[in-house]
Amino acid sequence: MNKIPVAILGATGLVGQRFITLLKDHPWFEIAELAASDNSVGKRYGDAAKWQLPVEIPEHLKEMELLPSDPVRVHAPLVFSALPTDIAGYLEVEFAKRGAIVSSNASPHRMDPDVPLLIPEVNHEHLGLVEVQKKKYDSDGYIMCNGNCTTIHLVLALAPLHKRFGLKKVLVTSMQALSGAGYPGVASLDIIDNVVPYIGGEEDKVETEPLKFLGTYADGALRHADIRISAHCNRVATRDGHLETVSVEFADKPSTGDIIAAFDEFRGLPQELELPLAPAHPTVYRREKDRPQVKLDRDAEKGMATIIGRLRECNVLDYKFALLGHNTLRGAAGATVLNAELLYAKGMLKEHEAKMPIRERNR
Amino acid sequence: MNKIPVAILGATGLVGQRFITLLKDHPWFEIAELAASDNSVGKRYGDAAKWQLPVEIPEHLKEMELLPSDPVRVHAPLVFSALPTDIAGYLEVEFAKRGAIVSSNASPHRMDPDVPLLIPEVNHEHLGLVEVQKKKYDSDGYIMCNGNCTTIHLVLALAPLHKRFGLKKVLVTSMQALSGAGYPGVASLDIIDNVVPYIGGEEDKVETEPLKFLGTYADGALRHADIRISAHCNRVATRDGHLETVSVEFADKPSTGDIIAAFDEFRGLPQELELPLAPAHPTVYRREKDRPQVKLDRDAEKGMATIIGRLRECNVLDYKFALLGHNTLRGAAGATVLNAELLYAKGMLKEHEAKMPIRERNR
Amino acid sequence: MNKIPVAILGATGLVGQRFITLLKDHPWFEIAELAASDNSVGKRYGDAAKWQLPVEIPEHLKEMELLPSDPVRVHAPLVFSALPTDIAGYLEVEFAKRGAIVSSNASPHRMDPDVPLLIPEVNHEHLGLVEVQKKKYDSDGYIMCNGNCTTIHLVLALAPLHKRFGLKKVLVTSMQALSGAGYPGVASLDIIDNVVPYIGGEEDKVETEPLKFLGTYADGALRHADIRISAHCNRVATRDGHLETVSVEFADKPSTGDIIAAFDEFRGLPQELELPLAPAHPTVYRREKDRPQVKLDRDAEKGMATIIGRLRECNVLDYKFALLGHNTLRGAAGATVLNAELLYAKGMLKEHEAKMPIRERNR
Amino acid sequence: MNKIPVAILGATGLVGQRFITLLKDHPWFEIAELAASDNSVGKRYGDAAKWQLPVEIPEHLKEMELLPSDPVRVHAPLVFSALPTDIAGYLEVEFAKRGAIVSSNASPHRMDPDVPLLIPEVNHEHLGLVEVQKKKYDSDGYIMCNGNCTTIHLVLALAPLHKRFGLKKVLVTSMQALSGAGYPGVASLDIIDNVVPYIGGEEDKVETEPLKFLGTYADGALRHADIRISAHCNRVATRDGHLETVSVEFADKPSTGDIIAAFDEFRGLPQELELPLAPAHPTVYRREKDRPQVKLDRDAEKGMATIIGRLRECNVLDYKFALLGHNTLRGAAGATVLNAELLYAKGMLKEHEAKMPIRERNR
Repeated sequence: MNKIPVAILGATGLVGQRFITLLKDHPWFEIAELAASDNSVGKRYGDAAKWQLPVEIPEHLKEMELLPSDPVRVHAPLVFSALPTDIAGYLEVEFAKRGAIVSSNASPHRMDPDVPLLIPEVNHEHLGLVEVQKKKYDSDGYIMCNGNCTTIHLVLALAPLHKRFGLKKVLVTSMQALSGAGYPGVASLDIIDNVVPYIGGEEDKVETEPLKFLGTYADGALRHADIRISAHCNRVATRDGHLETVSVEFADKPSTGDIIAAFDEFRGLPQELELPLAPAHPTVYRREKDRPQVKLDRDAEKGMATIIGRLRECNVLDYKFALLGHNTLRGAAGATVLNAELLYAKGMLKEHEAKMPIRERNR
Repeated sequence: MNKIPVAILGATGLVGQRFITLLKDHPWFEIAELAASDNSVGKRYGDAAKWQLPVEIPEHLKEMELLPSDPVRVHAPLVFSALPTDIAGYLEVEFAKRGAIVSSNASPHRMDPDVPLLIPEVNHEHLGLVEVQKKKYDSDGYIMCNGNCTTIHLVLALAPLHKRFGLKKVLVTSMQALSGAGYPGVASLDIIDNVVPYIGGEEDKVETEPLKFLGTYADGALRHADIRISAHCNRVATRDGHLETVSVEFADKPSTGDIIAAFDEFRGLPQELELPLAPAHPTVYRREKDRPQVKLDRDAEKGMATIIGRLRECNVLDYKFALLGHNTLRGAAGATVLNAELLYAKGMLKEHEAKMPIRERNR
Repeated sequence: MNKIPVAILGATGLVGQRFITLLKDHPWFEIAELAASDNSVGKRYGDAAKWQLPVEIPEHLKEMELLPSDPVRVHAPLVFSALPTDIAGYLEVEFAKRGAIVSSNASPHRMDPDVPLLIPEVNHEHLGLVEVQKKKYDSDGYIMCNGNCTTIHLVLALAPLHKRFGLKKVLVTSMQALSGAGYPGVASLDIIDNVVPYIGGEEDKVETEPLKFLGTYADGALRHADIRISAHCNRVATRDGHLETVSVEFADKPSTGDIIAAFDEFRGLPQELELPLAPAHPTVYRREKDRPQVKLDRDAEKGMATIIGRLRECNVLDYKFALLGHNTLRGAAGATVLNAELLYAKGMLKEHEAKMPIRERNR
Repeated sequence: MNKIPVAILGATGLVGQRFITLLKDHPWFEIAELAASDNSVGKRYGDAAKWQLPVEIPEHLKEMELLPSDPVRVHAPLVFSALPTDIAGYLEVEFAKRGAIVSSNASPHRMDPDVPLLIPEVNHEHLGLVEVQKKKYDSDGYIMCNGNCTTIHLVLALAPLHKRFGLKKVLVTSMQALSGAGYPGVASLDIIDNVVPYIGGEEDKVETEPLKFLGTYADGALRHADIRISAHCNRVATRDGHLETVSVEFADKPSTGDIIAAFDEFRGLPQELELPLAPAHPTVYRREKDRPQVKLDRDAEKGMATIIGRLRECNVLDYKFALLGHNTLRGAAGATVLNAELLYAKGMLKEHEAKMPIRERNR
């Protein structure tokens, strides 16, 4: 089978490295191009990346020459973007205009009204928004986004509850891992024997993105969910895995049994379509009194699930619980790849490739 | 000046060690007796204590022989208790019955209706409850308690707000330091690169103790405050210093300026009486966007203040902020000593000593 | 194919947990019995073990009832021992006397003259010693040991050098991970923001065990190697993976190229026999200036190799380098299992089983 | 008394911050000027410094405007340099030429034949070298240096041994704290749950600087000590405090009692002159089996001593021991200030000021 050639933008960073490991043996995608910032262009990937993962880089990727993040130089029809915030906004549009499908982990376009902010188990129907983009760009290309790493796991836990019982209020405190800040990211002297109760821009994302994820799509337009969310975001000294404590209030208060059943039974299109990266269970409820824990649960279900535990009554809102998720897998690179797998399984990539004869010829 | 002889129960543990360092050069108190668990009785303190602090034990205390935690053997009129929970309940009563004043850091008697649960800046008038105990025990002795380490700092931050504006709801998530679990306490393999979203019994204390602290004392009885509090308690890999994120709702919503003024201006009896261990400011509001931080702020004001920051509107309740406090100083040993200093400054210890002729003679 | 039934003694501890994960899908061995200390006997394994690993316990093992560590109750012909030091000495002999082959990770018998202290790549011929034991115990059972976790990786690095060039002096400083102390092991307050330059009994093991590993076996007897080894052992705040810095002096000083070739080319019987747990390369020399590193290299080759780097001239001895190895895989449970795999591949287990008709019937 | 006005170059970094805390209440020196890199010039110190220490910056220093590191703009007769390596070499000479005495923590001039590399307890007579500089620069200014942070503590431990018994060989492995790399320095992802066996340039400094420190000064020239030193330098996840394990060989092997006596009795000029920052005991030998430890011993003697322990026979060289020292106090800023205090106590600063009428007038 011919695999779809893909490009990785921002390939040398932490999320870029996760893309590499997720895509190196992918059944449907093949890494064709790697792009990075100007000071790395022209270097071998193995020389430019400060590799952080305990698996080796595949030899042929080590040797691959880094391209600039430029749609004129990068030709793959499907582009995974781990671009830095300050340039992602402009560059992703350029890629889309030139016909590329951009599956992005960057934040600038997440809240654009015509960009689907996607978790395939939660709101795959939002994909309809890409038609608006195609028209706007007069192109077959478009951008689709995954959310912030803290948001994604929050939404995975909230979605089954919101769908069944209707959420009104959510108060969340996060304890976020260091890899969430990229590399070099947080200085060691700033975090060893410390907690920092501030992460720039994070709380706003956690308070607003879920409203779009949980919003209703109809007739080419999206209505955001009507939930009040408040977030306290903190950085702690863990390598990977964001832990969140959450209190929730419902329109119609269910029983704890109802809630646990909602977590246990939650499935979506990725499970139905058996997407390669889909977890068997997107939400896993653990019965132990002291779970989820970062070191024990972040790698469950290949790092693609949200692990929940400690459901109990809350004196202020209705219920409270803790949740945990891997921030660079389901919270970043894994989410971006899963979104692309959804396109593939729906036939949206084949169709797209067929329309890209010129780019194809360039390869 | 003759100093008051004092005993330390549970002297070898982490809180006991903090008692030693706080009392070794105290202007009013003098360490006369050290008591510990059975397997340490008869040993030199320096041999029995697994010393954890970066200051040396005073030489004469190193040599002091450890007594059993038995009111027949321990004669000091003032007793600081860092006894383990399972034996504190019974033993503290025995000490009180035999005429000792017990300033306790242990939890069993905190919620007893006739035991003052005391933060001198917040509710010194609750001391009136000791008269009930004296009658019950037919003794000049009694027990007074300080709160849980997470509770104390929460209450110090809430008190100025509750007094001025009236609190209705509080939702708090704690990120607690390792010393809060004592020694050996948390196994290193359980916490390095980890967060544990569970601390046995902690949430219940944080949800109930503040209602007593902030309650109203009149005519020998106490009415608990009518506030709904919900807590999520987590253990993180810091040595000392509990960080808490807090959302609050008021009866009458003040402005942020009003709240900051309440923190800035908060003073109490310890400041007025210039108690030796009193912080100049019991609550310190920091204006930086990323404070308080554990490593930078836990030692402010000799570890006796609560440091607050990041006040901002909350989408679910009225406001939210972060607070930090040293858990074994103001959150434990420092609180216990400050409570005793209050007695001294009020003349309640002199009076007490005068009535203890037999115990005096034993010394 | 019928798998060999095996028992795990000390199954609930950290090394026991590693046995579980290494043996749960083993092609030749099948976990038939789990044994633990008295206070766990009769419990389900899932209830008694404080599980530390980020993979789930297989469901059927979770349900398995724990037996006492008693050769009358445990019948498997092959026994993996992670018994605590204080009881391993006596109990392992009892198992051997009753006909069991004991592959042990415990230290008491390591230096016994008739017990093979085994690293299959290094000294498989020492297995001849078991005949001495069989006679002594008048049994088909015997004990074979792997070394201390720091020693094993040191010996894996020294063996190719000693065989080619003859070692005279070795000076090693270790920086050892927390899992080396078992669970609960090191208290978090003793190691966060700390290094402890002392590990009880460790330096003696590191200085003496290599002399046996690298000794010469002939005619049923062993002559220890004539090397002077000095060790400084330190505990640092890492979860898994012991790092060691080593200076060496040779009888005949080779070139750095010779030494690197020795590391690159080192292979042994496990590689030849393709034992299931054998690493492709038992010693891996890395060319980067800042490797090996704990987090990046401990899991290389399934945690079964010793990773070496930074070879350079030493001003005091001839050369110096750094090495790293996983302490609970190749340094403990993995070593014990590999030793048993060697027996299997040599046919020594089949033969053994054939002679154990009564025990077989008991199963 | 008029205090000597001093300037701090590189005032915003970690070592600069330590200068601030050591000098803010100094009896002899007064901070007159603060200088920093170009992007901080003109800012308030409180805005430009990313403050890392758990004590507050004095208010008047917070407000002080940062100057460029330029001898035309900075006029203090005594200059403390924490300049980055790449510019310290040139700039320190410029300051010396214009008449300033430069007490430097930077490395470029340490090994210059006419620059004293100074530990006042060890080699104060090397100060004679400054006359060579004065002639060369035709100025009253000169440079004097302290050593590398790992070297200084090693030399403090070796000096009493070398003076009494004559050292021949030293093999040292360091486990160095994060503050040794400055700020932001080591990325948290590079060190949590990790050890890095490489610090650029460090081993060379540790192997060569001690030979100058322990060298012999006579007739305006210095003869380096004839000792063979080999170093393995590692970075570990501690905030402050370098731990080193050391093996040594003597010309004439003393007894362990002799060695401990040498550590116990070691004193020097700073103790005799009662310099403000001098520790009572520059070397402290601890008898416990598991000391020194980073968290317990780094702050002993105000962070100005070297703490030693675990002396025992070495199988390869004669003896081995562990040592610990605070890397940014006695290992950096404290050393630089102590060197300047020595000048003051010897009258070399008064004399110097008298000759600087023009610079004085500028102030």
